[in-house]
Amino acid sequence: MTTTNASNKTSFRTHTCGELRAADIGKSVILCGWLDVKRNHGGVIFINLRDLYGITQVVVKPENPVFKTVEELKSEYVLKITGKVLARPGENTNKNLPTGEIEVEAGALEILNTSRPLPFELSEHAGVNEDTRLKYRYLDLRRPSVSKNLVLRGRIANVVRLYLNNLNFNEIETPMLTKSTPEGARDFVVPSRSNPGRFYALPQSPQMFKQILMISGMDRYFQIARAMRDEDLRADRQPEHTQIDLEMSFVTEHDVAAVVEGMMKEVFSYAGEETGTPFPELDYEEVMLRYGSDKPDLRYALEIKDCSAVFKDSGFKVFRDSLDSGKVIRGIKGEGGQVYTRGELDKLTELIKKAGAKGLVWLKYKNDQFDSPTLKFLGESELKALKELFELKNGDILFICTDEPAKTARYMGTLRGELIARLKPAPLKKWAWLWVRHFPLLEKDAESGSWTFTHNPFTAPLPEELHKLDSDPGNVRSCQYDLVLNGVELGSGSVRNHSRATQEKIFGLMGYSPEEIQRRFGMIVNALDFGAPPHGGIGIGFDRLIGIIAGTDSIRDVIAFPKTASGACLMTDAPSALDEKQLKELHLKIME
Amino acid sequence: MTTTNASNKTSFRTHTCGELRAADIGKSVILCGWLDVKRNHGGVIFINLRDLYGITQVVVKPENPVFKTVEELKSEYVLKITGKVLARPGENTNKNLPTGEIEVEAGALEILNTSRPLPFELSEHAGVNEDTRLKYRYLDLRRPSVSKNLVLRGRIANVVRLYLNNLNFNEIETPMLTKSTPEGARDFVVPSRSNPGRFYALPQSPQMFKQILMISGMDRYFQIARAMRDEDLRADRQPEHTQIDLEMSFVTEHDVAAVVEGMMKEVFSYAGEETGTPFPELDYEEVMLRYGSDKPDLRYALEIKDCSAVFKDSGFKVFRDSLDSGKVIRGIKGEGGQVYTRGELDKLTELIKKAGAKGLVWLKYKNDQFDSPTLKFLGESELKALKELFELKNGDILFICTDEPAKTARYMGTLRGELIARLKPAPLKKWAWLWVRHFPLLEKDAESGSWTFTHNPFTAPLPEELHKLDSDPGNVRSCQYDLVLNGVELGSGSVRNHSRATQEKIFGLMGYSPEEIQRRFGMIVNALDFGAPPHGGIGIGFDRLIGIIAGTDSIRDVIAFPKTASGACLMTDAPSALDEKQLKELHLKIME
Repeated sequence: MTTTNASNKTSFRTHTCGELRAADIGKSVILCGWLDVKRNHGGVIFINLRDLYGITQVVVKPENPVFKTVEELKSEYVLKITGKVLARPGENTNKNLPTGEIEVEAGALEILNTSRPLPFELSEHAGVNEDTRLKYRYLDLRRPSVSKNLVLRGRIANVVRLYLNNLNFNEIETPMLTKSTPEGARDFVVPSRSNPGRFYALPQSPQMFKQILMISGMDRYFQIARAMRDEDLRADRQPEHTQIDLEMSFVTEHDVAAVVEGMMKEVFSYAGEETGTPFPELDYEEVMLRYGSDKPDLRYALEIKDCSAVFKDSGFKVFRDSLDSGKVIRGIKGEGGQVYTRGELDKLTELIKKAGAKGLVWLKYKNDQFDSPTLKFLGESELKALKELFELKNGDILFICTDEPAKTARYMGTLRGELIARLKPAPLKKWAWLWVRHFPLLEKDAESGSWTFTHNPFTAPLPEELHKLDSDPGNVRSCQYDLVLNGVELGSGSVRNHSRATQEKIFGLMGYSPEEIQRRFGMIVNALDFGAPPHGGIGIGFDRLIGIIAGTDSIRDVIAFPKTASGACLMTDAPSALDEKQLKELHLKIME
Repeated sequence: MTTTNASNKTSFRTHTCGELRAADIGKSVILCGWLDVKRNHGGVIFINLRDLYGITQVVVKPENPVFKTVEELKSEYVLKITGKVLARPGENTNKNLPTGEIEVEAGALEILNTSRPLPFELSEHAGVNEDTRLKYRYLDLRRPSVSKNLVLRGRIANVVRLYLNNLNFNEIETPMLTKSTPEGARDFVVPSRSNPGRFYALPQSPQMFKQILMISGMDRYFQIARAMRDEDLRADRQPEHTQIDLEMSFVTEHDVAAVVEGMMKEVFSYAGEETGTPFPELDYEEVMLRYGSDKPDLRYALEIKDCSAVFKDSGFKVFRDSLDSGKVIRGIKGEGGQVYTRGELDKLTELIKKAGAKGLVWLKYKNDQFDSPTLKFLGESELKALKELFELKNGDILFICTDEPAKTARYMGTLRGELIARLKPAPLKKWAWLWVRHFPLLEKDAESGSWTFTHNPFTAPLPEELHKLDSDPGNVRSCQYDLVLNGVELGSGSVRNHSRATQEKIFGLMGYSPEEIQRRFGMIVNALDFGAPPHGGIGIGFDRLIGIIAGTDSIRDVIAFPKTASGACLMTDAPSALDEKQLKELHLKIME
């Protein structure tokens, strides 16, 4: 992925350290780079000269006037070497190195800079503490395994931009210094020196601006946009992240999906991966029933099944009572003869109970027989029905829970994750994409008990369910869609409200007074009054996307200068204290 | 520049309003857009339907069932029109409209949204107050004269990125939440909720990070980067701006220049303009002598000349004393027989005096004779020498000042600007590029009297003048270069210090103690210790570049959501007050 060619020529060098091949043998060249490794082989010194593009072996012969100098060179010295490209003797070619067919016999050598001994070895396998790596990020980035991620990131940004440019999307920069928007997290704020007591907010996303751009008639907008959220600290969460942000006018959700699918096809193809389109899509309700998660990992087939019907006349009081009170009973099957000990089953039960379940029913099926502490409560016909429904084979284990549908889905989703982790089934495919659609528009806020948006306050209800906004708001489904890849929520978008009346009604349901609506959302609500077109879009997590493609565990690996979980930059020492003068200019005082 | 093609098809429309041509006659089409103008021509209604891409004329006949609806439609209603493409009768074709050969006869018509009456007319020529335009930016942006600038901006960003990608530059995002850097302006700061009393700074430029990336071995970096400066308010100054930021390893200033020149060639070529390379270059000293400015407008030939030698034996005491005390005498000629009245000359004298000059000598040359109040002090040979040096012709006027070289240059530069404004000479070329090189490394800070950097604290001295750092720091020239276009400073860059010793010596000259150097610049100074490669780069003002290409007077015209001179966004009402809870979480109190 790290390209190198004649464009990299500068006044200092004729070639990079990753460029020379057998075809260059005989050429006079000048290389610049870092001394990666030096070996003294019986009077001949070999230097591995390294730059971003690769490593070239340089030979210094004892008769070379610079030989004495070379003997003194240390790791990470920056060198300029003039020399001649030679073929490596057959037995010495290095098949693992793109430049392995040649070596450069050094003539002149100039030390461009020296280096103190490094605080850690750059060699790939040295297990360096992450804090040390982040403090010396400039050394960490010299490791090809780290730098290649940044190169990839930049190239993929280019693939994305080209693709969107070709579809006539306009790349438009939205402000960094703006006003608070309600995105579900806290804003970072910026005191305004010239407007004492007033603050800008850093954008949590360009949401309002991109909708404003559609109302402006800009038709198609995109931006690879920085967004900042002052969230409470979690591992692998960064205070700033990057998203591929786009919005289109005169679209349905399927128009947006087609643009995104085409983009992902090109991005993955650039990374040497094939990914089929269109992506499968499932309604929220169905995905929760079948997979117990709104971001299921569909590399694995494992499915949850509703078995309420099996128990509709059950003598098992727990299940009967449950069904009588409108709850559901669902099960998931562990295949493949994995043995669960009693202890393991107890742990699973604890896990589910912590999530809120009353209990976990498990039935092992072995030697054509069920084995379970619950067995005595279940009738023959029920067991037969279960066997058929779940297609149980000897060695399988069946887990069953009962509760309200949403809760049961959650328990089952946890079990599904657990089974995948334990059974490690072979993935059905390498890249499992999924559109999850038609999320509920509103949900009850756990704290306040009032309605709140599930994803985005600007999402439109499904047109055919608009009429339920007054009578049954909790059951109105929305034009909200999430993009899921391998169990990771990669993006989230929707068709938006372009009707002021609908938008205001939704804010009203969320408990905002007309005055509050004006204060918090005045700009967009008012703009909807002046001929807003139907529009929709999506924001796709760019850090996560690159992380998945690069196959890294942490998004810190694909960010040039990431912060720690406490929001600190160990390299720059940010955040840091201000001096009194600065505080005074800002009309601020720190409170203990 | 606003492209439109089949890619713009969505579920709502088959074509855009800028797309249909004679070749489409007979097609059934669906268009969406805004009602721009409606005309009732004796029972037939014509609608100009507008979107970003253009205008299409729609005809609604009286027999159409939607006719009554159409009669009621108002400006800026959003419509979806199904219809058939017809040829416009010969005499009705509109040569000024790309779609002018056709019209669409409406079948079905759907009102996608209504609009309240607009607060101002969108018609191009309505002189709308800028504050109103900014408050309703989403309406302002519906005017093609405004939206085309944003489209152009996005396209040019793409040209720049493609160009740099092809040269193997890596696009790398540097942090928005970072630490204060000394860039000559105030930082915007961001209180950290989880680190009470500590603040992030928003970047004034990615300067330190891009140097760190070079030390990281990333070889070639670029970013179209947002930068924020909390500067005092000035017209046409925005608190956030965008720069094309790049840095390269193993380069001289000429390598950077070649990259920039190639980029500008492509950018201007995209905009349909030719611009020759390489760009001319002048040393700072020469440009100040010849043009009296470090960003002269070289579309005009007008040059300043040093005429100290003419007066080396002068009887004119003012000039003699001046020369004796090491000052210089310089002049500039106004050509073309423009008559300056005594009042105008007095005004010019005032202007120069305000800038610090003791006075202004002027000599008119007319009927082969000089005319000036100063004439009596000057000898025949001096007048003859002046006439020859400045090649004076009848009708010319010569202005002369004397002072220290730097000051004289400033006075003369003011006069040059004045003469260009008055004489309006025909430009020699449309695009006058210039590299100004070898700025002084240091200058005396007017307030403190100590040395400070002229452009950038990380700029390297010219290698051949390094030895003067101790003995004569004020006369050390640097590897600093500015890119000037038509009198506008478009970019500024340098080859940087890659030697820690030199960098520390420069900070020392600027009065920093070793402790302060560590506290303020520790990251970069320490990083220089570990094998920093020679490197250099530039930052180019993207807003200014687009402004020049778009031919606008204000950079607000090329920014989607600009702020006013007081830093306010009239559309979002930012900055705004925080509530008590937010302030408390941030451990902040507002001081009156």
